Amino acid sequence: MSAAPDLHRQDLHASLADPVLGSVAFLNEVMDRHPDAISFAPGAPHPEFVRHLDTRALTDRYLAHLVDDRGLDPARAERLLYEYGPAQGLINDLVAEALHADQGIRADARDIVITVGAQEAMLLTLRALFRDTGDVLAVADPCFVGIVGAARLLDIPVVAVREGPTGLDADDLAARCHEARAAGRRVRACYVAPDFSNPGGVRMPLGPRHRLLGLAAREDLLLVEDNAYGFTAPEDDTLPGLKALDTERRVIHLGTFAKVGFPGARVGYAVADQRVRHADGERRLAEELADLKTMVTVNTSPLSQAVVGGLLLEHGRSLTELARRKAERYRRNLACLVDALERHLADDPPPGVTWSRPAGGFFVRVDLPVRADAALLETSAADYGVLWTPMSQFSLTGGGDRQIRLSCSYLEPDRIDTGVRRLAAFLRKETGA
Amino acid sequence: MSAAPDLHRQDLHASLADPVLGSVAFLNEVMDRHPDAISFAPGAPHPEFVRHLDTRALTDRYLAHLVDDRGLDPARAERLLYEYGPAQGLINDLVAEALHADQGIRADARDIVITVGAQEAMLLTLRALFRDTGDVLAVADPCFVGIVGAARLLDIPVVAVREGPTGLDADDLAARCHEARAAGRRVRACYVAPDFSNPGGVRMPLGPRHRLLGLAAREDLLLVEDNAYGFTAPEDDTLPGLKALDTERRVIHLGTFAKVGFPGARVGYAVADQRVRHADGERRLAEELADLKTMVTVNTSPLSQAVVGGLLLEHGRSLTELARRKAERYRRNLACLVDALERHLADDPPPGVTWSRPAGGFFVRVDLPVRADAALLETSAADYGVLWTPMSQFSLTGGGDRQIRLSCSYLEPDRIDTGVRRLAAFLRKETGA
Repeated sequence: MSAAPDLHRQDLHASLADPVLGSVAFLNEVMDRHPDAISFAPGAPHPEFVRHLDTRALTDRYLAHLVDDRGLDPARAERLLYEYGPAQGLINDLVAEALHADQGIRADARDIVITVGAQEAMLLTLRALFRDTGDVLAVADPCFVGIVGAARLLDIPVVAVREGPTGLDADDLAARCHEARAAGRRVRACYVAPDFSNPGGVRMPLGPRHRLLGLAAREDLLLVEDNAYGFTAPEDDTLPGLKALDTERRVIHLGTFAKVGFPGARVGYAVADQRVRHADGERRLAEELADLKTMVTVNTSPLSQAVVGGLLLEHGRSLTELARRKAERYRRNLACLVDALERHLADDPPPGVTWSRPAGGFFVRVDLPVRADAALLETSAADYGVLWTPMSQFSLTGGGDRQIRLSCSYLEPDRIDTGVRRLAAFLRKETGA
Repeated sequence: MSAAPDLHRQDLHASLADPVLGSVAFLNEVMDRHPDAISFAPGAPHPEFVRHLDTRALTDRYLAHLVDDRGLDPARAERLLYEYGPAQGLINDLVAEALHADQGIRADARDIVITVGAQEAMLLTLRALFRDTGDVLAVADPCFVGIVGAARLLDIPVVAVREGPTGLDADDLAARCHEARAAGRRVRACYVAPDFSNPGGVRMPLGPRHRLLGLAAREDLLLVEDNAYGFTAPEDDTLPGLKALDTERRVIHLGTFAKVGFPGARVGYAVADQRVRHADGERRLAEELADLKTMVTVNTSPLSQAVVGGLLLEHGRSLTELARRKAERYRRNLACLVDALERHLADDPPPGVTWSRPAGGFFVRVDLPVRADAALLETSAADYGVLWTPMSQFSLTGGGDRQIRLSCSYLEPDRIDTGVRRLAAFLRKETGA
């Protein structure tokens, strides 16, 4: 017999060599080596939201709903927790109701597929929409690694669209569409997070939202809207999402309970009300996504769906109510981070250092006068005890090489302040010309 | 603005038009139309195993293990349930221990990735292994729809290998490898379920297992072993799995808790101890699968993993112990099905009707003298009140068109008997020459 048949990475799928798949591991590794550093890297939930969750009571609340509101026999209701379930999901009706009440999205349960987090929703959406290798996915640059990674897994080409101060730049998207057409290709869909992008932290105003929808209609492309951070918008300053403004079913809307609920549930959803014509009739795109899901995860764990259903029922069937305390905490943390940057840096700012002041989301962008690379991060961690994410990790174009992302979702205010003091010292000493 | 931009299925990914994705929906639809029929179609768990599960107690058992055996702070342990978790999994050590004790598989926790059911393990494994369009996946024919569907999603070509009375036919696989090579292609991997295939119900004897491993070494291909039904083997007649016999790390072993635990957990695993060489060292294939998983489901719900961990701990950290009662029930049901076939058919068998007598698994194969198509199924359901699965649904080659699959996992013995009596009447009347 021959020796052990070790594999070589170049024999494995190309996505495995893509830095986007290694970016989380890279940051975890740096954090592990510097356990005492204050880390502005992860967008993790605040610890107060991941303890004392009574999953049994939440599950019972959902079971009572199945019996009282939907007329199921109690034994049958409980069996739903343990059996295989419908690929499209169990709690679609509750999600549809909440999306309508909270966000003005008119979709019914059949327009929704419940997924293992928004990540699976991205994978399913891309898989359904991309058939030909001539089609490309447009994404804001810098971009959330999850959508780029899903595209890489499916060998879908990605083109970068500029993200400006009002979010995804529609003119630049139009230029990308034009370029694609000239090359015999097509921009099939565009991924966008209008309510506080990750990592950019940018919110798209109402005008640009309408312009983007108009462009999507003219260019015949679909918009994949990620609403993970919309709940953090100030209560007196919310904007309708793209899906709420969508009169043409141009928008597939993705959401997650990781932030408004808790990440360990691994429950997300796609609203995909597009009608798909078949030889023998019409189906909804959500039903097609569910068909694909049977070959990815079969169905989303009913245990998790019941807990999430219980959370919605406990909060008046409202995502907004469910998210209220969290939204307050994250807005407070963000304000605290921006205040600390002002306090420690604004009086005597290091040359070339500026930062964003987002109204919501988890992320502040800081512009540096020098390259924010792995070596600079190592210096920051080892000598100053503070960690951040190089924005270049999120770029497809080599952009953002002089930017960093700060996240403060999981930190206490005093840690944020101490971290920013360390960051200020680091920026004054290490980013001088 | 233009009219609503309905999509056309031919614009969506080709897998959506593949019958394999619609096969479950087809059977559900027939079952819905004939609610009083006795259905031998689904491989669902017996109802006694999907009720009265104390998920809270099981979770607490797992948390106690984290605290007592692994030294975690109790608050930290509980937070693990609610946070994002490691993509590779939480309960890998327990699974590794059980696989070693029960099945002689020598793998450590780092060789394992915990997945959302075996289905996600299939998708991740195929994604990692298939880089070039010249590579093909070999599968037994007839074949489990989940592996074919995952291949379709990833545009991986599939070739069918004959399944004979001793399982996957190694000579036929060798011929497929030869053909592929002659066409400038390569059989990269072969999917096989040696311990009671689905749908065939065939078990591979020890000799053919060794021959298959030898062939894999000669042809330099990997074997993807699915062990979903191995637990149903008679206690005094078990055989070592391919992974236990694997001295060359040729085998990736897939398992699921859907049958030995419960389907709603959505927890499975891949044992992938292959070493992957990189420019800067070596990793395990399981770690690469975990990287891919970050772009599919991020991580398997820790709520579900804790319940499954609790199940293992409650059963002496043994899959065999966990499965014992279920294995007894499923063997009893299978014996009951075969007995009923003998009782109702053997004395005066309809010409051309024969059936298999498997020692384990969920499935009996019946050969008919006529085509077992959708029309015949409709007659069987409407006029005789009995349902089954046309074997052709599982074939890539148009084979099995005169075979049906009977499953009895979830039925009570009296229903099995009544169902077979109806089936016998149907076979006598409707399959005559």
